[in-house]
Amino acid sequence: MKFSLKNSDNKSRTGVIETRRGIVHTPAFMPVGTQGTVKAMSPEELREIGAEIILSNTYHLYLRPGHEIIHQLGGLHKFINWSGPILTDSGGFQVYSLSSLRRITEDGVEFRSHIDGSLHFLSPEKAMEIQAMLGSDIAMAFDECTPYPAEYDYAVKSLELTTKWAGRCKEYLEKSTPPVPPLGRGGEGGVMSSQALFGIIQGGMYKDLRKKSLEELMEIGFDGYAAGGLSVGESKEEMYEIIDFITPLMPADKPRYLMGVGDLLDVLVAVENGFDMFDCVMPTRNARNGTLFTSRGRISIKRTEFKSDPKPLDPDCNCYTCRNYSRAYLRHLFLSKEILSMRLNTIHNLYFYLDFFGKMREAINSGTFGQFKKHWEKILRVGVME
Amino acid sequence: MKFSLKNSDNKSRTGVIETRRGIVHTPAFMPVGTQGTVKAMSPEELREIGAEIILSNTYHLYLRPGHEIIHQLGGLHKFINWSGPILTDSGGFQVYSLSSLRRITEDGVEFRSHIDGSLHFLSPEKAMEIQAMLGSDIAMAFDECTPYPAEYDYAVKSLELTTKWAGRCKEYLEKSTPPVPPLGRGGEGGVMSSQALFGIIQGGMYKDLRKKSLEELMEIGFDGYAAGGLSVGESKEEMYEIIDFITPLMPADKPRYLMGVGDLLDVLVAVENGFDMFDCVMPTRNARNGTLFTSRGRISIKRTEFKSDPKPLDPDCNCYTCRNYSRAYLRHLFLSKEILSMRLNTIHNLYFYLDFFGKMREAINSGTFGQFKKHWEKILRVGVME
Repeated sequence: MKFSLKNSDNKSRTGVIETRRGIVHTPAFMPVGTQGTVKAMSPEELREIGAEIILSNTYHLYLRPGHEIIHQLGGLHKFINWSGPILTDSGGFQVYSLSSLRRITEDGVEFRSHIDGSLHFLSPEKAMEIQAMLGSDIAMAFDECTPYPAEYDYAVKSLELTTKWAGRCKEYLEKSTPPVPPLGRGGEGGVMSSQALFGIIQGGMYKDLRKKSLEELMEIGFDGYAAGGLSVGESKEEMYEIIDFITPLMPADKPRYLMGVGDLLDVLVAVENGFDMFDCVMPTRNARNGTLFTSRGRISIKRTEFKSDPKPLDPDCNCYTCRNYSRAYLRHLFLSKEILSMRLNTIHNLYFYLDFFGKMREAINSGTFGQFKKHWEKILRVGVME
Repeated sequence: MKFSLKNSDNKSRTGVIETRRGIVHTPAFMPVGTQGTVKAMSPEELREIGAEIILSNTYHLYLRPGHEIIHQLGGLHKFINWSGPILTDSGGFQVYSLSSLRRITEDGVEFRSHIDGSLHFLSPEKAMEIQAMLGSDIAMAFDECTPYPAEYDYAVKSLELTTKWAGRCKEYLEKSTPPVPPLGRGGEGGVMSSQALFGIIQGGMYKDLRKKSLEELMEIGFDGYAAGGLSVGESKEEMYEIIDFITPLMPADKPRYLMGVGDLLDVLVAVENGFDMFDCVMPTRNARNGTLFTSRGRISIKRTEFKSDPKPLDPDCNCYTCRNYSRAYLRHLFLSKEILSMRLNTIHNLYFYLDFFGKMREAINSGTFGQFKKHWEKILRVGVME
């Protein structure tokens, strides 16, 4: 993987991540394909709306269908028919947030499957092995997501674990040779052929711990650095404070990834501070619930006033949904609980997000990010019109 | 609407229905778009798999979103983004099968909405008005679907009602001028610009009544003739007996439509007897339940043996699903309850149906329908492998 910075506007910046499976323009939004499919979308539709990279969840794919099966079938890309870059998380956050029963030791985490209650164990090495066998282009180090709120002492211990685990992940990547699908591990083609590995900064809401975490990760050395443990229940002010504090300390020449944050108001703040990568289920989940993003604010497609409205959802939008269907039809499909409702809404919301990121990059390139941010903050602050 | 016969092989026949919105090759299968969308499919996907005509349900669209709204928005084709021919049923069967509370008088049927329990009234005139305002290319006469089993006396009365109502439908089409969307009614362009109207033969399992029903409809004169009240609980033998009896009595120069029958074993018998048009939710509903049609018989995608099976669902199939995905992935999507599962399965099953009909037409054209039927009967008789 290679990362090149292109332009900057104050602290915000544009760049290009070159992976072995294609390039990603940053700031980048990664649609979430938890179970090996971005809900309601086909790979072709993802490409058509401009998705350059997607995220998939190690925890889910490990439990079902199992990484051995995916590996046996030629890797995740082939399995899900997506030839572009894929980033896999490490499973750490999922274990933290999805498993009711989990026991954390220095070795790793024992947890019960949310599907059938069966007992499993994830360690840094296991998480790396799974991601290698999936053949993702960017792997994430296995971390312990510090909960919110957390006592200082707990946050210290959690951070120490995360650092140790990060080191073990790096070591595993360098020294072991798990079976990998084509392009899954590479190595012979140099930096472009191997799986990239990002470290995850923890430390809760404590700045000194965040700094310590980052420094220890930089000591180990990663292809990119991610901020984890945010958007886990803290206030926006707390989150923004951590973003504001940590971003300038992160290496400028590596991608900076803000995990799981996708509220566009938060994205604007993070990009303003110099973050490059984002993922979030918000556009896809909202789409299925009938909440749609438009250039004039979010709207609920259920609204009675759309009953016989012939206009496209967003007259300023050029997505397939807006080019071909009326608000009245989208409302009808939603009320009728039709599958096409989820499809058309998801296409629109993801298009909106990717288009928003494209315009944001243009703004940074032309030195007008400040105006861009002001313009959108006004729109995004308006609540959903039910 | 124009209908031209092309070839025949014994009693089976191929033909072409020319409608104002495109041609339909017969024998034809019409995917069902109950609520103004063929479940899980986009209009482009329908076109891609070769659908030439779809069916939509008057009852459902009347209740939600309402025919006035669809009319106001430019008609059903524009509303749902499908420019090809649409056949609408009259609502008679839906009222019969979906409404718990219904009261039949000579005037029409009073019933309660399955959505909100509200009281409604459908009559021949109302059903025609709705279909005119939807702007479908082929409308169906409003009938009373004789239940199974039915006493002879009841079947007689039901049939008398259906005949009277059919006459009122024809009269309405000729004399009234409801507001219609573009191409909705036409008239100036002659036969090709106006909405076609099919009559529905009732009479239960009584041959003399079926004959009487057909003769009375022919007296009135329709663009096509449909057999209704079949596949409503009777045995296959009873159904086949009626098909065998009624088909040769139906006008040879008009399309013959067997309503709601889509089990391909039944289709083979009906086509052998000279039927031309079919509709059924079987391929789409089965797809969503994970039962898939293949050239070797039906299979359940849940099967454990597909767990790591890299093969396409049907190696002999050329659909998007079979060209791009493995059985293992389809199984994974189904077990994970992903929307893409319903999409890919529906594409495959509808492609299978439309392809089956295409091959059936070829067999008739080349005088080998008998062999075609024998070949497929063997495959179709095998139960679903769970």
